[in-house]
Amino acid sequence: MDQIIKKSFRYQVYEQLDPTAKTNGLSMLNKVIIAIIFVAVIVAILETESTVRSLSPSLFIYAEWFFAALFSVEYIFRVYAAGEREVYRGFTGRIRYIFSIWSIIDLLAILPFILTLGSYNGFLLRLFRILRLLRLARIGRFTRAVDAIIEAMRSRSYELTISLCAAIFLLLFSGTCLYLLEGSSQPDDFGSIPRALWWSIATLTTVGYGDVTPITATGKFFAGLTALTGIGMIAIPTGILASAFSDAIQKCNGNSKTQ
Amino acid sequence: MDQIIKKSFRYQVYEQLDPTAKTNGLSMLNKVIIAIIFVAVIVAILETESTVRSLSPSLFIYAEWFFAALFSVEYIFRVYAAGEREVYRGFTGRIRYIFSIWSIIDLLAILPFILTLGSYNGFLLRLFRILRLLRLARIGRFTRAVDAIIEAMRSRSYELTISLCAAIFLLLFSGTCLYLLEGSSQPDDFGSIPRALWWSIATLTTVGYGDVTPITATGKFFAGLTALTGIGMIAIPTGILASAFSDAIQKCNGNSKTQ
Amino acid sequence: MDQIIKKSFRYQVYEQLDPTAKTNGLSMLNKVIIAIIFVAVIVAILETESTVRSLSPSLFIYAEWFFAALFSVEYIFRVYAAGEREVYRGFTGRIRYIFSIWSIIDLLAILPFILTLGSYNGFLLRLFRILRLLRLARIGRFTRAVDAIIEAMRSRSYELTISLCAAIFLLLFSGTCLYLLEGSSQPDDFGSIPRALWWSIATLTTVGYGDVTPITATGKFFAGLTALTGIGMIAIPTGILASAFSDAIQKCNGNSKTQ
Amino acid sequence: MDQIIKKSFRYQVYEQLDPTAKTNGLSMLNKVIIAIIFVAVIVAILETESTVRSLSPSLFIYAEWFFAALFSVEYIFRVYAAGEREVYRGFTGRIRYIFSIWSIIDLLAILPFILTLGSYNGFLLRLFRILRLLRLARIGRFTRAVDAIIEAMRSRSYELTISLCAAIFLLLFSGTCLYLLEGSSQPDDFGSIPRALWWSIATLTTVGYGDVTPITATGKFFAGLTALTGIGMIAIPTGILASAFSDAIQKCNGNSKTQ
Repeated sequence: MDQIIKKSFRYQVYEQLDPTAKTNGLSMLNKVIIAIIFVAVIVAILETESTVRSLSPSLFIYAEWFFAALFSVEYIFRVYAAGEREVYRGFTGRIRYIFSIWSIIDLLAILPFILTLGSYNGFLLRLFRILRLLRLARIGRFTRAVDAIIEAMRSRSYELTISLCAAIFLLLFSGTCLYLLEGSSQPDDFGSIPRALWWSIATLTTVGYGDVTPITATGKFFAGLTALTGIGMIAIPTGILASAFSDAIQKCNGNSKTQ
Repeated sequence: MDQIIKKSFRYQVYEQLDPTAKTNGLSMLNKVIIAIIFVAVIVAILETESTVRSLSPSLFIYAEWFFAALFSVEYIFRVYAAGEREVYRGFTGRIRYIFSIWSIIDLLAILPFILTLGSYNGFLLRLFRILRLLRLARIGRFTRAVDAIIEAMRSRSYELTISLCAAIFLLLFSGTCLYLLEGSSQPDDFGSIPRALWWSIATLTTVGYGDVTPITATGKFFAGLTALTGIGMIAIPTGILASAFSDAIQKCNGNSKTQ
Repeated sequence: MDQIIKKSFRYQVYEQLDPTAKTNGLSMLNKVIIAIIFVAVIVAILETESTVRSLSPSLFIYAEWFFAALFSVEYIFRVYAAGEREVYRGFTGRIRYIFSIWSIIDLLAILPFILTLGSYNGFLLRLFRILRLLRLARIGRFTRAVDAIIEAMRSRSYELTISLCAAIFLLLFSGTCLYLLEGSSQPDDFGSIPRALWWSIATLTTVGYGDVTPITATGKFFAGLTALTGIGMIAIPTGILASAFSDAIQKCNGNSKTQ
Repeated sequence: MDQIIKKSFRYQVYEQLDPTAKTNGLSMLNKVIIAIIFVAVIVAILETESTVRSLSPSLFIYAEWFFAALFSVEYIFRVYAAGEREVYRGFTGRIRYIFSIWSIIDLLAILPFILTLGSYNGFLLRLFRILRLLRLARIGRFTRAVDAIIEAMRSRSYELTISLCAAIFLLLFSGTCLYLLEGSSQPDDFGSIPRALWWSIATLTTVGYGDVTPITATGKFFAGLTALTGIGMIAIPTGILASAFSDAIQKCNGNSKTQ
């Protein structure tokens, strides 16, 4: 009983830092860390815009140092608290923890900045921070939703693979047709199949930038057919996923009723 | 019995004005008010177009005054009729009614116009009128449809949140890639991540304006991958919503059979 | 028995011309008429293109006269054969037939051409011919498919109406935002709400022509939000229709099992 | 027993080459052939791009000869191994095999190259190779997925046909409207119905290139309506396919439970 009340400092740190330690929701500290990561990401994004950066360049430099210091402290505590789990106990355990995938991402998000004393532009670092957010997605109630989405996609993986293969075939086919039809009149845009594929992708995904469009009558005719086929390219995977979700939920409900 | 026949004037006004007073459909007066709101909105939209306004500027000024007068009268009657409901009875009740959310919207739709004696351009006022239309949506048979849509979206809120998170991650990731690949060759359009995000959104939502497109080969390659991913960004929420609606309706039918 | 063998000439004409006379499929003559209508429509479409017409102007004039003659003969026989049905018997019955909706369409497809002795360009006539094709859609096996689509849409008419209302509200709202944000910098494209609505529609439907795009930072920010909302505008009706079809088919299968 | 162990050389070749010989997955050799076909297709695609080809023209010529030799050897072995199947036994059987559809595709993928001694640009050949990949799709576990997709589409073929007919009607109708409204102000882009159809397709499929857009107010109004209708053109087939997949899977699961 006494043991339960007097939790060791390391256990308290572990409980606060590890998102999987608590089953129901996130700890207060983790919520604060997520908020800081979000702010750090937004700062890093705004920093790339010179019109924003020029408003107060020193502010962004201070912010960089501030986030680097904060994330370094967090990293050290994470390594320290890792000892609570059996596998990461002792010195060799800590080494093992440091070389685990998520820990490397954590380290990559601070190391280059520290080594270059802040001269390195921190964006790629921040990208690793975003990746860390993904880990937080696998918590409590969200886990079930992520599992439902992954399960739904896995249960129809063959159908999705085939619709992807059909999509690639259509891309190559329509790209080749337009290359043969428009290549001579627009050599810059349709002069080779890789060039024509740029148009193909823009059309079949219905993005349709319009920077490259056929100009000959036959080219437009085939382009029209390609555009109409593009509807199927969206409708078929959508239909597959819709039925997969419907199935996954029904199974899930069935299980919960049985339990 | 006599009481039932001789309804008080205030009750008759209340019955005519409050959309929730009658269970089956809207009262005649409410239908007229909705029609007037529609006309007022259309007039306000057309008014902003100088080629239309110049046809007869005085007509639009008269129309503005006419609608303001009409909505003021309606507002006064609403405050008067509110007394029919227990909570809004007496002077303090009326004050409470005036500060209720829908009543404030009603007031905002007329007050600025009256205070400035018509010199204020009435569009934002009309916007509040449109918001009022939303209240009318929660009537009779429509309520069930609105509830079905909201229920379907709520029941899958985790899945939708995750697909939204994935969408934001994809937006940031593809925006960053294009910023790194195209930033040097097109500094105006890809010179910072916020700028690249404009392209990102246009591509992943398959809007594809085409005002900003990659020009380097590697940029086009990554842009093509982004466009193909955009299909998933549409297909996954669509699939989730489709299964959610299917589930919500099945549950609804199941309940109605049991009852 | 003798009566069955010796069908009257009028009955034979009726059986050949009326698509509802035979339950299983179309009569030979109706198939020929459909093919002729298709050819007439294609000729009329190609005729509008001056580069095609100039190849042989007289050919197109002959074709017009040929189709007009053919459809006139068909019309006369249709009026004659209408007498087979009780409601259209006798002189007053024929008058009633001539003023029935489909008969008027048939007449409009030939009358202007004959009255102007071929000087009237036949396109609008041909449009009426296309409308006539719709009648043929309601035959045999197709009827069930059309009914399934209409039934699916009707069963969710409230949900569809609400998503349409939400769409219109979004269109107006985003149009107004962009009018306020971009109106001063791009008066030609965003100088009034009707002008901004053109951009709104192109964005929310994810068509994205790109002829009109915001140029200010705040304008692009709101435009990005609008584009992301556009996914919901596609996903919600798609989800509603998907569940509606699923439901309609299940009910249909349930009925066929019971029978 | 002895017979089972000592398989004839021809049988071993047949087992390795024919994708339908083994029920569980592909043979090693077939996997290698698929990989080679993929590489050959990619080489053929890159070859069309002069900037890539100019890096090392002789390399691409050698690659062409290498692939042609490889596919010729494969073709000879396929003809030889075909004798394992009853229908293709003996000389007349081999002739029959050579004139079977897939065999002709195999031959077309090498013959022109050999006959012209490599002077013929090999792309169309490679296209035939891609078609061959389709055959490999009908193997083992993929077969069921392909069957599910085809079955789902066939079971709703009437609904899909009708939504296709409605799409064509909408294309013609909106094309004609824009031709009448915009034809005089933009004769190059809307001067005839076939020209206006190019815009129609780009709009209704929500591709929206933006190379052709209406400029008159009425033209923009009708174009907006067309764009909104385009959502239905995507939503209806998507909904049909979603319910079809859902149905096909349910039936499939039902069968597997019964068995």
